[in-house]
Amino acid sequence: MRYKDIKKINIGMMGFGYIAHGVFELISEQKEYIRKKIGKDLEIIRIAEKDPESLKTIPHNILKKMSVSSDAEDVYKDLEVDVVVELIGGVEPTYGFVSEALKAGKYVVTANKDLMANRGGDLYRIAEDNNVDILFEASVLGGIPIIGPLKSTLASDRIFKIVGIVNGTTNYILTRMEREGLSFENALSMAQKLGYAEKANPASDIEGYDAACKLAILSSIAFNSRVVVDDVYKEGITRVTADDIEFARDMGYCIKLLAIGTEDDGKISVSVYPSLIPSNHIMSSIDDVFNAVYVYGSYIDRIMSYGRGAGDKATASSVVGDIINIARNFNRESKGIIYGCSCFEKKEICPIEESRSKYYMVMDVEDKPGVLASIAKVFGDYNVSINSMIQKQTDADGRAMLIFITHEAANRDLFSSVEKIKKLDMVNNIRSIIRVEDFD
Amino acid sequence: MRYKDIKKINIGMMGFGYIAHGVFELISEQKEYIRKKIGKDLEIIRIAEKDPESLKTIPHNILKKMSVSSDAEDVYKDLEVDVVVELIGGVEPTYGFVSEALKAGKYVVTANKDLMANRGGDLYRIAEDNNVDILFEASVLGGIPIIGPLKSTLASDRIFKIVGIVNGTTNYILTRMEREGLSFENALSMAQKLGYAEKANPASDIEGYDAACKLAILSSIAFNSRVVVDDVYKEGITRVTADDIEFARDMGYCIKLLAIGTEDDGKISVSVYPSLIPSNHIMSSIDDVFNAVYVYGSYIDRIMSYGRGAGDKATASSVVGDIINIARNFNRESKGIIYGCSCFEKKEICPIEESRSKYYMVMDVEDKPGVLASIAKVFGDYNVSINSMIQKQTDADGRAMLIFITHEAANRDLFSSVEKIKKLDMVNNIRSIIRVEDFD
Repeated sequence: MRYKDIKKINIGMMGFGYIAHGVFELISEQKEYIRKKIGKDLEIIRIAEKDPESLKTIPHNILKKMSVSSDAEDVYKDLEVDVVVELIGGVEPTYGFVSEALKAGKYVVTANKDLMANRGGDLYRIAEDNNVDILFEASVLGGIPIIGPLKSTLASDRIFKIVGIVNGTTNYILTRMEREGLSFENALSMAQKLGYAEKANPASDIEGYDAACKLAILSSIAFNSRVVVDDVYKEGITRVTADDIEFARDMGYCIKLLAIGTEDDGKISVSVYPSLIPSNHIMSSIDDVFNAVYVYGSYIDRIMSYGRGAGDKATASSVVGDIINIARNFNRESKGIIYGCSCFEKKEICPIEESRSKYYMVMDVEDKPGVLASIAKVFGDYNVSINSMIQKQTDADGRAMLIFITHEAANRDLFSSVEKIKKLDMVNNIRSIIRVEDFD
Repeated sequence: MRYKDIKKINIGMMGFGYIAHGVFELISEQKEYIRKKIGKDLEIIRIAEKDPESLKTIPHNILKKMSVSSDAEDVYKDLEVDVVVELIGGVEPTYGFVSEALKAGKYVVTANKDLMANRGGDLYRIAEDNNVDILFEASVLGGIPIIGPLKSTLASDRIFKIVGIVNGTTNYILTRMEREGLSFENALSMAQKLGYAEKANPASDIEGYDAACKLAILSSIAFNSRVVVDDVYKEGITRVTADDIEFARDMGYCIKLLAIGTEDDGKISVSVYPSLIPSNHIMSSIDDVFNAVYVYGSYIDRIMSYGRGAGDKATASSVVGDIINIARNFNRESKGIIYGCSCFEKKEICPIEESRSKYYMVMDVEDKPGVLASIAKVFGDYNVSINSMIQKQTDADGRAMLIFITHEAANRDLFSSVEKIKKLDMVNNIRSIIRVEDFD
């Protein structure tokens, strides 16, 4: 419902870094356009930022009309502020600021995946108690609308699976390994040089934490039950080798870091791991820093959204999109919930041991009669059946390499069989174990 | 804003065919789930349908609780009905029913692209005058959320280009021609056999009318200026040959029916035509009855949405998604606009003659010295420059075939050069002229 009487929405920003600057630019550039669209002006009236350098990008004549301080508290204590935009990042002390803002009756827009994936449930409870809402489209997949659609149009359907390439850094690294045959280490330093991976601490991306946050947020909405980042099983891409990429290609696959959430009979499985995917599937053409997410539902069958998952401009567009959603519904006299929390059910999280997957495995073995029979017997004993096998002669010393792809097997069985196979005399080494997602 | 006091939203359906049945099923199956999600029940209390056979799928105990008649008027005259779902189709007499429903203060949800692409502006005026809204997510791309995102999250950005594969029938036909080497006629009858193309009158799909309706709707929202279906330049796929598909493939392209809308400096271009697109671009992997649409904006860069563009279940999910959007905001005492009309600007529609494209052309010529020089001269005279050319020897009688791909050229220049080339003695026939979209 548009409240035509309210002509201006006052925005207070907590944190003024890279993305905040994009938000400022977008709101300034599109001021008139947004006014025509929603019948209201958006105006940043207050900023809290510790580093005065960050504010230098704001023209002086505009800055002098704003209230500026270094204290986040000043933003939510400002009675004139309608919407608080949180772009500080991290869980603490940000959680405190955001919860206080909600308690003060402010709507909150955030791009903070870390916060939402850890404390989203708590924040929703505070928002509901105070009859306001917290929106976070920008926290997942940058400029790609996915939270809005899941909370509105797709709210009619039962979503049972989500599969995404949700981290740009690892996708960039895997694309370089795929295209230029680079090792993981070389591709990582290339990503660091270009600013796609953090120099000091790339772990959050390459070890899957960033993707796990995004999956926790998406799964909470899709499956209507709270999933936090610690619920997500994580395996990064640090152990994927140039050989794996090459062998996978020979077998018609490429390797991507997937975030997969499923709901089956009231149980939720959430995992992030590198996976072989068929080279002819659309997901294999999601390259470089692009992201994509597949959503499967009983009525929609499947939909996929694709775009830039990061960057100041793309992320700013989602932040301002959320502000527009709030502005459209804004009435100072009677606030209210826009979408609200979707987690009205309480579903069990399945441990990874209970999951089922197909697996790709590479083993160094002695090239002797009977070796395959011995390995196959162990697999058989643990209900792991082999879909395809390729033998590669590695040297003249009687050693060979075996590459397997299995049918779907229980995680527990697979790793039990692997422990047994490792102990076989003729098996020297198990180099790689990577899951396979055939999208079937 | 959720109005918690209202516990039930009463739905009246005009028309009860294929998609309406999907809506009925979805609402019945997910009754409890939707109640938990939005705190309200959705209930179909009235149906208007001329063919009593159509109602046989509704269980008797449910049907007897509904009011049923054959007159659409009864639906909007029913004071108990909150939301009217229009699934009759066509522009007339449906326009009359829908406008009366809005005048009666009902929210309207429709899947009718024909109606929205012809009379959308008029309906919005009536809706605004009566402080209600009309939602039509299902009218474009079935189950893929695109109208909602354009009207909410993406509303912050300036959208300057839309490119879509928006018609499942033609995409199915082109996929069969590509994969099995079928002629257009054979692929069409295959599509007809499978129910993907209408038997009596496939023209609406294969000649581009259906795609043009969808493009008119999307462009109106994206460019904030009313575009009607008659504004759209249309070329169908009836003249695409098996040879074209093969030659395109040899040059690294496939052929898709594209709907393209652009806005540049206040001018809108809207066209539907078959086009060569690079085989390694994601759009080339949109096969069979699947649809996809790319949206380009100054902040988002580009996003793409993909999924099932038709079918009762996918379309029903969008209809019910719209009902949920209305239900969340519903207050009988004070109605209001949810998104409202986006067309607050009035932009000029560019005639196709002023457009610029790359072109693929196939000519039958005499295989004599000087023939290429003569053709190239004419192209040059009209500012058409050639990007690549392949000569194919067609027979021993001294005839050859030339395949050209041009650089970007003005439509007017290209067709003027073609008229001139046709008159050259050595040119026997110009078989094909198809645009090329390189997505660069």
